[in-house]
Amino acid sequence: MKFFENGNTQVFALGGLGEVGKNMYVIMHNNEIVIIDSGVMFPKDELLGIDYVIPDYTFLKQNESKIKGLFITHGHEDHIGGIPFLLQTVNIPVIYAPNQALELIKRKIEERSIPFKNLKVIDGESKIKTKHFEIEFFNTTHSIPDSLGIAISTPNGVIVSTGDFKFDLTPIGPMSNIHKMAEIGKKGVKLLMSDSTNALVEGFSKSEFKVDAALGDIFARHTGRLIIATFASNIYRLKHIIETSKKNNRKVVLFGRSMETNVTIAIESGYIDGKDVIISADEALKLKENEITILCTGSQGAPLAALSRIANGSHKQIKLLPNDIVVFSSSPIPGNGAYIAKTINQLYLKGVRVLTNTSLNDIHASGHGNEEELQLMLRLMKPEYFMPMHGEYRMLKKHADLAIECGIPKDNVFIMDNGEVLNIGPKGAKKYGAVTAGDVYVDGNRIGDIGGIVIKDRMIMANDGIIVLIANIKNNKQLLGNVNVTTRGFILVNENEELINKISNCANESIKKNIKITKNNYSDLKTLLIQDVSPFIINETGRRPLILPVFMDIK
Amino acid sequence: MKFFENGNTQVFALGGLGEVGKNMYVIMHNNEIVIIDSGVMFPKDELLGIDYVIPDYTFLKQNESKIKGLFITHGHEDHIGGIPFLLQTVNIPVIYAPNQALELIKRKIEERSIPFKNLKVIDGESKIKTKHFEIEFFNTTHSIPDSLGIAISTPNGVIVSTGDFKFDLTPIGPMSNIHKMAEIGKKGVKLLMSDSTNALVEGFSKSEFKVDAALGDIFARHTGRLIIATFASNIYRLKHIIETSKKNNRKVVLFGRSMETNVTIAIESGYIDGKDVIISADEALKLKENEITILCTGSQGAPLAALSRIANGSHKQIKLLPNDIVVFSSSPIPGNGAYIAKTINQLYLKGVRVLTNTSLNDIHASGHGNEEELQLMLRLMKPEYFMPMHGEYRMLKKHADLAIECGIPKDNVFIMDNGEVLNIGPKGAKKYGAVTAGDVYVDGNRIGDIGGIVIKDRMIMANDGIIVLIANIKNNKQLLGNVNVTTRGFILVNENEELINKISNCANESIKKNIKITKNNYSDLKTLLIQDVSPFIINETGRRPLILPVFMDIK
Repeated sequence: MKFFENGNTQVFALGGLGEVGKNMYVIMHNNEIVIIDSGVMFPKDELLGIDYVIPDYTFLKQNESKIKGLFITHGHEDHIGGIPFLLQTVNIPVIYAPNQALELIKRKIEERSIPFKNLKVIDGESKIKTKHFEIEFFNTTHSIPDSLGIAISTPNGVIVSTGDFKFDLTPIGPMSNIHKMAEIGKKGVKLLMSDSTNALVEGFSKSEFKVDAALGDIFARHTGRLIIATFASNIYRLKHIIETSKKNNRKVVLFGRSMETNVTIAIESGYIDGKDVIISADEALKLKENEITILCTGSQGAPLAALSRIANGSHKQIKLLPNDIVVFSSSPIPGNGAYIAKTINQLYLKGVRVLTNTSLNDIHASGHGNEEELQLMLRLMKPEYFMPMHGEYRMLKKHADLAIECGIPKDNVFIMDNGEVLNIGPKGAKKYGAVTAGDVYVDGNRIGDIGGIVIKDRMIMANDGIIVLIANIKNNKQLLGNVNVTTRGFILVNENEELINKISNCANESIKKNIKITKNNYSDLKTLLIQDVSPFIINETGRRPLILPVFMDIK
Repeated sequence: MKFFENGNTQVFALGGLGEVGKNMYVIMHNNEIVIIDSGVMFPKDELLGIDYVIPDYTFLKQNESKIKGLFITHGHEDHIGGIPFLLQTVNIPVIYAPNQALELIKRKIEERSIPFKNLKVIDGESKIKTKHFEIEFFNTTHSIPDSLGIAISTPNGVIVSTGDFKFDLTPIGPMSNIHKMAEIGKKGVKLLMSDSTNALVEGFSKSEFKVDAALGDIFARHTGRLIIATFASNIYRLKHIIETSKKNNRKVVLFGRSMETNVTIAIESGYIDGKDVIISADEALKLKENEITILCTGSQGAPLAALSRIANGSHKQIKLLPNDIVVFSSSPIPGNGAYIAKTINQLYLKGVRVLTNTSLNDIHASGHGNEEELQLMLRLMKPEYFMPMHGEYRMLKKHADLAIECGIPKDNVFIMDNGEVLNIGPKGAKKYGAVTAGDVYVDGNRIGDIGGIVIKDRMIMANDGIIVLIANIKNNKQLLGNVNVTTRGFILVNENEELINKISNCANESIKKNIKITKNNYSDLKTLLIQDVSPFIINETGRRPLILPVFMDIK
């Protein structure tokens, strides 16, 4: 890449800027590349059928030989979910990850039978050296154990990437290593990249300690079964629920695959004291109501999640009982409000009690720091340059404003896009060109074979269905029989035969009229057919289905 | 309907219970039926492509001759939007509506060329008599002028339906007629049906007066163009924005069709003093920035609404300027959060200032009453029986609890479903069977020709696309040539020819193998074809597209 001068250091994101998810940041110096995180993003509703969005790995593929390693900050999907896809595309020599993340990554690559073995564990004390870089870590507090910030010493100064963090002064797990952060800041930070997820939230985030107190209170007060839905990624919440169940002589049944995976790893790693507490749904049948906690996925109302199926009565292993208490230990992610409302309505209809974050204030806390905590990080690191990361544009913008309030000169604050390069040299940092970046779609087990046109077709079919017009054409010049009209998602066919016949007639006429003009050019004949049939259908039905002509050659 | 005893009065909903929208309530006594409201519901996301959901009108069609009239409480879509569809299905002798609603209904039926003329205006003083009923009205406060509650005197007592309401003690329009409500209550109310929309919200709703003050403040402080997005149905908000613009020497440009319709009617009816204030987008080009207010739709982030197009730069008549101030005078409807966030991100990216209900507290107030106001209505009417209406189950349930707190005996409070009948006789009220009720889908210009199977097909195609397998079959016993494989929304075809060929081979083999066994039964042959091809595709791609076999007979 000729625009990178020798001796300078480049920093850019392949994902995570202007969006929440698919985090991936690259630090490059001459012939060395270090990657931080490799996440997925869960697609927005309009990306019909897409399972994951991952970064475009083109730049990494083209610079494969320079890659020294992938460094993982913590084990959440938006930081590790892309690893199986990355490994299928780019040769990565080694992945460094903290313990909980490492266990999750292991399962991911085993599930997809990827023969990658070079996984190495890191912690807050690890140090890794390459030719140009010296990489160390500091413990942060987040909703999963083993969350790290990264400090990379480069020939052009120290670059710090916080990972996800909050400052919880009464955490359930270990404290953030504020002293190490202060030390790094004191020695001098050239560039700080910091988590912007909750930049729009005022004040200081609630401590997990308060959530524990509120949940503990629920355990003390109720004698029915407790059905608690929360994020499977929030290991400290799971820890508390399982350990409090144990203290209150309740056994815990887990529903939801991600819940089972996370709890199993956390128990194996010793983060959760829950060995004899977890039981199967069958075993629970033998217990009294006050001896059971059900810990499940579905706090966002996802239609197939465990709680949604419990609420609508379609869950095979559990039916609701009148004394059940359902607790949403979570907050709604924007866009999920209607799904959650549906679940709550169904639960009320079944007559059970429902506790949510609105009815009761302290049953959820975020894992990301608010305004004051972001400013505390800025003060601890007192960087020369600042690049807000992890967040939609409005969050990055707000985080930039918070940095300026903390005395960082406006010109030293960079709101960047994915792919945009920040070039750091002896004279300072400035924006300097861009590398390839973008969204790649994963649908099923294939990467990148879905493009905008496929999504657009799905959208049209989602709204108005499809009409397939099949014509047998003899010797390129004569329509044999009538055009066959087959529809899906367009109309109830049995009750609307007349309309289907009319469409067939319209198509017959179009082909007969045009076949002589277009001669052997089927492509033109198809275009004319669509041009004739489409306005007829719009006029008759007010709908705009996808019209798919297929011509069969008969000799 | 043999289960209705002669001399009793029946009350039920065809829409509006267990949901927000498609309000329609029926009061019946012997051979007389009175209908209150005829609304639509906007479909949830999972109802792909459906434009409106309307009630099942079967009961009304079957009892057409008994219908004395349709009474409209106010001019919002969830109360009048179903009228064109109702008139196409059921013979309605007369529609009574308050002025603003009547004007909106007129346009609706003109647009669809429905030859209905018998529209009569009503107001808070009107009285209408039929053989068994005496119907009168009382003014309420809501976000649209001419909102009425209805009191129907029946041989079994007075039934009151509130319509939508809040108690605003400093309203922009006229006060609610609390004195008439008190009088009706004093004379004795048998059954109260009351609006539950905001039953889950504590306290007393904010007065529109405070919103006025906050918006007035924005006008005083800013000298750029003001771009204000709000609900087109909130006539009082539009009134304030237009009249304050006039006072501040700003002209108003309207964007969005519903905005134009509502403002035009409100100006014609004299509710808004805005005759010389509204200008076209072209005229605005000649004015200075501080002389322009843009009033537009899109406060919910709907992708095609005016503000969304302004934000993403695709609006033909307006481009954003650096000094523009965008105001969301609205609150997010559950489920729209992600869309609104997208619009806000785009606005920030363009560098304009954005004011929302979170950043500034008083720029929106709801048109529905909160807990305290619902209890005030309960106290004023002091009904013997209570039926909460307008709302999802959780709202009805909460409203029922509020009624019990106000001293209505638990057994006299009825949480009903659409179709469930409340039978009121000399001995009191009780639930008594049900009439046909349900959802009917309107897509394009046709009613009810879409069923669950069509929606299910749309959903499959939305997620994974469609594969059409076309086979020419000669004399019912031989496959001619290869199976033609055509896909849409499944995969990028040009880059995946190999996969398409493999699918074709798999289909060829299936047909050759099975054609002798199934003989002339194409239906069986299609089923076997799907059974063979489907696992192959799932295995190759991890996707489950709709597979549509079409056999063409060749003689």
